[in-house]
Amino acid sequence: MSTFSEKLKYSSELNKSLLCVGLDPDPSAAAISDMLQFNKAIINATKDIVCAYKPNLAFFDALGTDGLIVLKATIEHIRDVAPNVVVIGDAKRGDIASTNKVHAKAMFDFLGFDAITVNAYAGLQALAPFVEYADRGIFIWCRSSNNDIGVQDVKVVSGDGQISMFLWLANRISDWDRYGNVGIIAGATYPGDIALIRKICPEMPFLVPGVGAQEGELKRALLSGMDRFGRNIIMSSSRGVLYASSSRSDYSELARSKAIEIRNNINSILEDEGKNWGKT
Amino acid sequence: MSTFSEKLKYSSELNKSLLCVGLDPDPSAAAISDMLQFNKAIINATKDIVCAYKPNLAFFDALGTDGLIVLKATIEHIRDVAPNVVVIGDAKRGDIASTNKVHAKAMFDFLGFDAITVNAYAGLQALAPFVEYADRGIFIWCRSSNNDIGVQDVKVVSGDGQISMFLWLANRISDWDRYGNVGIIAGATYPGDIALIRKICPEMPFLVPGVGAQEGELKRALLSGMDRFGRNIIMSSSRGVLYASSSRSDYSELARSKAIEIRNNINSILEDEGKNWGKT
Repeated sequence: MSTFSEKLKYSSELNKSLLCVGLDPDPSAAAISDMLQFNKAIINATKDIVCAYKPNLAFFDALGTDGLIVLKATIEHIRDVAPNVVVIGDAKRGDIASTNKVHAKAMFDFLGFDAITVNAYAGLQALAPFVEYADRGIFIWCRSSNNDIGVQDVKVVSGDGQISMFLWLANRISDWDRYGNVGIIAGATYPGDIALIRKICPEMPFLVPGVGAQEGELKRALLSGMDRFGRNIIMSSSRGVLYASSSRSDYSELARSKAIEIRNNINSILEDEGKNWGKT
Repeated sequence: MSTFSEKLKYSSELNKSLLCVGLDPDPSAAAISDMLQFNKAIINATKDIVCAYKPNLAFFDALGTDGLIVLKATIEHIRDVAPNVVVIGDAKRGDIASTNKVHAKAMFDFLGFDAITVNAYAGLQALAPFVEYADRGIFIWCRSSNNDIGVQDVKVVSGDGQISMFLWLANRISDWDRYGNVGIIAGATYPGDIALIRKICPEMPFLVPGVGAQEGELKRALLSGMDRFGRNIIMSSSRGVLYASSSRSDYSELARSKAIEIRNNINSILEDEGKNWGKT
């Protein structure tokens, strides 16, 4: 049984990539109306370019009756054509422990995700039913990518001083990661905050959503969030890749171009830092 | 178009009840294995006793492929046999605004809930896509029913002093409820905390999960959480009602007895307080 960290390391090395493509199937933005065919085309076009896929469950829920069928079939397609790429269920699940136990069953036993995103509002002990799946990854939502973050940014009393809530949470998470399968979510838009969290959690995998096309932003987020080996970070881009074109004739081709562009941008930053991929 | 507050008021008055039955279909605890038949039997047995049903979406997700079908059919059954009872989707959804927009579509347009539960970790502005459904209710998870609450209980800097995070959040919610459709979730287990939140939010509907059989606890939670008219509170009980019996011969009958017992306990407390139901 490989751990999530091992799987992630393997998929990253295999495709020489820290890029994750977020699967947010949106019929109002996609080039074709069949969302399963759309997902399959995106996956076929990017499967050798990414370390991870991240289906965002809200988008599947919003497809109505077919949503669950499309989600299941999308995950199966990834397993078929890209068996080494990790699949992260972006669901931000989180409730009290008795409900989290049932969520874990749905996410890990039924849907079979390698990792999921969770919300720690009910406290870390309530997340125990998730982390007990020791071979799966649990990404705790720490610092979101939006700017009115409210709860996360309240100043918390800490010793004689005060710190932002998301840093308080990062400290708690760092102390609590008993099975070594916990990771952190920190949005790409605040590289300074990513750096602060990385200091607290030097070894954890980071999931960084909201990676856009701009190279400067990408660079700041990557350098702030990667570990000392230039690894253990999943740079996730959704709409920029999925909806690179709205034409059915070239959307998958342009998704591939966009994914290659981001992957290559990441890799040239890694090279500049002397953290290039091994000759696998 | 009635607002959620109006619907809740009507359903409460109609059945002279502040009781909500939480629908947590659990094949390992239920008297029969068909979860749709189970839900229907529970609903048939309690439809004149409750003001609300609260399907917990995790339990439906964990049913696998059939979960969504069972959920849809359960909601439809409530609409058929208890058209005035409100249906609250307990999903604790919460993400950045662009994803919340899609969640809202799934919860309100597709599933058709009268109200849902949400998580404010990304800040209140991110919840705008939910509250813009002005005829639906949005219950923000403020104080959970478990005891290691971590995030909620950190001490937040406030003026010269400090307050618990959940009270800071309650204050923010109170200022922010622009459409009058926002409510608060506060677990039954901490009546003292419910009372503190009620002071901050005197007019909002409260959803109080974790209501058990013990009369003392019920009384403290009710007196702490009801508004000055003895209303605007939804006392929710799940397992105590659903799994009152594990025998297929009497589970629905005993669910009804348990629901009547809790409803009557609530009503006698209201009577003692001079807040009895009008002669409708």
